Amino acid sequence: MTKAAASPDPKSKAEIEEGSVFAPRFDAEGLVPAVVTSAATGEVLMLAYMNQDALTRTIETGEAHYWSRSRSRLWRKGEESGNGQRVVEMRTDCDQDAIWLKVELTGNAEACCHTGRRSCFYRAVAGGAAPGGGPSLRFVDAERQFDPETAYRHADAAKRTLKSSE
Amino acid sequence: MTKAAASPDPKSKAEIEEGSVFAPRFDAEGLVPAVVTSAATGEVLMLAYMNQDALTRTIETGEAHYWSRSRSRLWRKGEESGNGQRVVEMRTDCDQDAIWLKVELTGNAEACCHTGRRSCFYRAVAGGAAPGGGPSLRFVDAERQFDPETAYRHADAAKRTLKSSE
Repeated sequence: MTKAAASPDPKSKAEIEEGSVFAPRFDAEGLVPAVVTSAATGEVLMLAYMNQDALTRTIETGEAHYWSRSRSRLWRKGEESGNGQRVVEMRTDCDQDAIWLKVELTGNAEACCHTGRRSCFYRAVAGGAAPGGGPSLRFVDAERQFDPETAYRHADAAKRTLKSSE
Repeated sequence: MTKAAASPDPKSKAEIEEGSVFAPRFDAEGLVPAVVTSAATGEVLMLAYMNQDALTRTIETGEAHYWSRSRSRLWRKGEESGNGQRVVEMRTDCDQDAIWLKVELTGNAEACCHTGRRSCFYRAVAGGAAPGGGPSLRFVDAERQFDPETAYRHADAAKRTLKSSE
């Protein structure tokens, strides 16, 4: 594979793929995708994005930090919902443009998704077409572990304040 | 979360998050990231990208297809190496901008990575700094299942031909 145009990294393919220096390759927006799985069950919980700052803080604190693309800001998982993630292991892939975090869920609710579910991946793509056209989705492992209305009430209030000050 | 600017999808947040219509939201480059795990062991094997065509072909054939960003072309996993992926389950996440594929590995080698490893995530980020600075990487589950020199000999030849024709 050739190197992504966005990376200013001068490392060789061999250094990137077979080396022992962690040199993550961020995309044109300065982000790298992070796959997050449960260290306990192995299930995929979410896919998030990290910039250099989020990555550094995650490594330094052992608590998962991400870059929120919708809110354009650094985000410590759980800072609003209380449902954080302690990093058990961090890996990178062959070309160092993706991260895999194995995490333990902290907080009262065993949940990662803002909808209250344990995993963000609570729907499977089914074979048949949905009434609206296209393949349909089937809810799986979709039980809510917390009520998002309650968990994000404080956060919503804070967001409204933020927006009104813009 | 607000909708990504790149998505032309007119669906509401409620339809996207709680609906049963599969309406994947591609990024500005027309891609959606796909987390690929082993249906047998649950381990994360790779992170790849799909465009609409790759997604459609994957759903229609049950064989994982991706968009190669480095080669700018559709790619059926295993078409060169022989190590393909049969899709056991496909899921999408809350805001439908990520895919999770649980796959069975087909072909002789139990491997997904072009370096010959089972998973692309064969290095863990260690606490200490590497000689070159920055955190170091520790090889884990890094045994090669096939020899990439042999597996991609034909592919390399094809790539050289392609490049020479550009």
